[in-house]
Amino acid sequence: MMSKIDTLIIHADLFTMQGDGVGYVEDGAVAIDAGKIVAVGPSDELLKEYSAEETVDATNKMVIPGFVDAHMHTSLGILRGLAQDTSLWMHKGIGPYNPFMNDVYRLAGSKMNILEALAAGTTTFGDYSTPINEIAQFFQTLGARARLTGFIREVPEVLDKLQEDDLYPFDPAIGERTLNENLELVDRWHGKENNRITALLGPQGPDFMSLECLKKVKEKATEKNVMIHMHVAQAARETKQMVGRYGKRSIPFLDEIGYLDDSLLAVHITDATDEEARLLVKRGVSMVLCSGSIGIIRGEVPPVMPFLEAGGKAALGSDQAPGNNCNQMINEMKLTALFNKIKYKDPEVMPAWKVLRMATIEGAQAIGLGEEVGSLEEGKKADIVFIDLSAKTMQPVIKTPMRNHVPNLVYSARGHEVCKVMVDGKTLYENGEFLTVNEQEILQDCQELATKLTNEVSEEKFKITKGAEFMKEGKL
Amino acid sequence: MMSKIDTLIIHADLFTMQGDGVGYVEDGAVAIDAGKIVAVGPSDELLKEYSAEETVDATNKMVIPGFVDAHMHTSLGILRGLAQDTSLWMHKGIGPYNPFMNDVYRLAGSKMNILEALAAGTTTFGDYSTPINEIAQFFQTLGARARLTGFIREVPEVLDKLQEDDLYPFDPAIGERTLNENLELVDRWHGKENNRITALLGPQGPDFMSLECLKKVKEKATEKNVMIHMHVAQAARETKQMVGRYGKRSIPFLDEIGYLDDSLLAVHITDATDEEARLLVKRGVSMVLCSGSIGIIRGEVPPVMPFLEAGGKAALGSDQAPGNNCNQMINEMKLTALFNKIKYKDPEVMPAWKVLRMATIEGAQAIGLGEEVGSLEEGKKADIVFIDLSAKTMQPVIKTPMRNHVPNLVYSARGHEVCKVMVDGKTLYENGEFLTVNEQEILQDCQELATKLTNEVSEEKFKITKGAEFMKEGKL
Repeated sequence: MMSKIDTLIIHADLFTMQGDGVGYVEDGAVAIDAGKIVAVGPSDELLKEYSAEETVDATNKMVIPGFVDAHMHTSLGILRGLAQDTSLWMHKGIGPYNPFMNDVYRLAGSKMNILEALAAGTTTFGDYSTPINEIAQFFQTLGARARLTGFIREVPEVLDKLQEDDLYPFDPAIGERTLNENLELVDRWHGKENNRITALLGPQGPDFMSLECLKKVKEKATEKNVMIHMHVAQAARETKQMVGRYGKRSIPFLDEIGYLDDSLLAVHITDATDEEARLLVKRGVSMVLCSGSIGIIRGEVPPVMPFLEAGGKAALGSDQAPGNNCNQMINEMKLTALFNKIKYKDPEVMPAWKVLRMATIEGAQAIGLGEEVGSLEEGKKADIVFIDLSAKTMQPVIKTPMRNHVPNLVYSARGHEVCKVMVDGKTLYENGEFLTVNEQEILQDCQELATKLTNEVSEEKFKITKGAEFMKEGKL
Repeated sequence: MMSKIDTLIIHADLFTMQGDGVGYVEDGAVAIDAGKIVAVGPSDELLKEYSAEETVDATNKMVIPGFVDAHMHTSLGILRGLAQDTSLWMHKGIGPYNPFMNDVYRLAGSKMNILEALAAGTTTFGDYSTPINEIAQFFQTLGARARLTGFIREVPEVLDKLQEDDLYPFDPAIGERTLNENLELVDRWHGKENNRITALLGPQGPDFMSLECLKKVKEKATEKNVMIHMHVAQAARETKQMVGRYGKRSIPFLDEIGYLDDSLLAVHITDATDEEARLLVKRGVSMVLCSGSIGIIRGEVPPVMPFLEAGGKAALGSDQAPGNNCNQMINEMKLTALFNKIKYKDPEVMPAWKVLRMATIEGAQAIGLGEEVGSLEEGKKADIVFIDLSAKTMQPVIKTPMRNHVPNLVYSARGHEVCKVMVDGKTLYENGEFLTVNEQEILQDCQELATKLTNEVSEEKFKITKGAEFMKEGKL
């Protein structure tokens, strides 16, 4: 007797990411019921076993687990392209725009950015943004998986006024307000929508708040049993602050105050030494690598290789639009592979299959969702992406003597090959159309608000940016 | 009285690349007649002056000169994705497939590759391929601009059999045959289609042929008044051959035999010292930088910065699909910017406007077509690309206090934003459709032949590749 299920995907070039490789199944099928995967295997077997409401023919499609984008600031999306090719990005790049931002602008940019990412195959969004409660509402409607973090900090909006060597001033009232907002996020949203929406605590970085505030965040994280998502050793700038304030670099400092354990998701670690990277692994800390963002903003390649070699779990993140510009995981996979080949002058470093694992199963494990998503296997949530193999960028499709799907996805695909995106077994995007939200309205809204916002930016603030120099020289 | 013309493009966000910046014209227009640009300026002025057969409303489009891809081996397109993440790429990557290639396979891959590039905005193709006469015919039909080069070499297909330190054997009969084929290309095609198709001579590299053969090529180039398009200092492998054979590195050797002058287009120069790069500039040599290809195949970033700083003209090239995988100039611009920022650990190195110039006007100048294409100005050929600003990746569009079009094109766009491509004033591609060739037929042909070819690859050859190792480990 056949089991009744909601959906049966058949005839896929299936890459399950099970095991330690890419888990290929020839002519593969995925059986889905009530938003979960109930079986994965060859089409002929599953066709005998299951009777489905809907059968999806995935002939000539590569089918993979949805991408995990572990670190995004979608609320900067509205400023895309405005802070490029500049040194001192936080001060001279994004800093001059910050005083003119508000939550209406942020939310409009977030929505645009999220649609961009979803259409390119991201199903799990590690969004670290403001206003995070409104963004959570958007994810609730959209139907994508969200692992959300609020911004906790004590530094007022003065970065563009400081000299490079000034220690940041702290305002405890800001710390209290932002921590409370983040706790509200946890209380309201953590576990919502059958655990599709979860929450983390987000101290911006060890340099952005007092020791007291850091300790309070850690206490609350333990109390609420949620992870901490924090920028750690993100730049020489941070190291300078930490050494100036405490006489210690970020990672030894955090070790001393008991921050380094498996509840910490450490983002960037750009300015960590290889030894510090290994210490993080030893303590059970996961990392997020934002190759595109750190490459463009700092011209650096973080020490992910020693981190991985020590056995650490690393996720990939697209960070934010006015730095990285591109919130697409295919882009992150490619840049991660290429930057590390260049860093080590070795084309064998960071092969395609490895970055694909980091963008799926290993990323899911790093952010604490390894039991729920990241691979296509029985019992996991049905977060699934279909890639059209008839796209020129995936052509020709070769199956013998080797398959070229994975190298072509990582090195050749550009994002538009994604033709169907499912989360919890529900299709959210198909053939260019979003099924749960109105794309036109969202893009129009973002465009109108971006025009309004940028018209408000004062000449005085703008003039210190690289953009101002380029405009004068006719280079934009 | 209004002048009658063929086409008037109006209301564009126009980036002409005139001058030393990006040559922006607000609400810009381009007047085209008989395939040439007759005027560029504000829409209201040109609308008063010209009466056009066809008026193209470019509202919400970024309009730029077509991209120049100065160095491609499209005839390897059929092998896309088969030679990744490997050291010794020529021996262990592509080498094992070479004995099974033939001109039918090569041509099928070329056509697929060329469509991929055209759809992403490439209008000038520096294709260095076999069978080059058949490829020229394809360009004749397609209508794109082609600057074609034949392969001249004396090394037989034995690279996969050689030990790393062996000097390549030369076979003068191969040299004579390949030189004659290249000369036939020049005689048949150079200047064809109102100079839309031109030809160069292509000695594969100073290590791939004898001194006699190199000298014969130089003589013929002078006699025919065509440029020489050659790989120079492309890898440590080449340097080893040159030092082993002549006791000299490639660039000093070429200087000595009179190869370094403004008729030479030197590709890669990966293994050149900064000083050698400057010597090339001093001699008037142009260079082609293939960032994606060299990054992925060798993990290196060629010395383009000292070359540019010495005043040299550099073009960008996408090289070939089984190494780089991606034959798109937007990809090359982005990787060129990011790799150089990383090489110099400086986010201000290689800004977006500079790589856009290299992909258009400076690229055209480098390959000797600077008087014909590369910018939108009176008297030049009407090779024009339209970019849809309503694509999510180009959103939001910001015009004040700075324009974000150029950074977004370079850092955010993915290729599918290109919505219209014109060459010689004729539209070749529009909204996903090719107007002069049958895309479906070309892709189907390439897919069928790729399956046939790869089925022929012997286990014995395949087993030395990285792909064989990954297949065994379940990583493909």
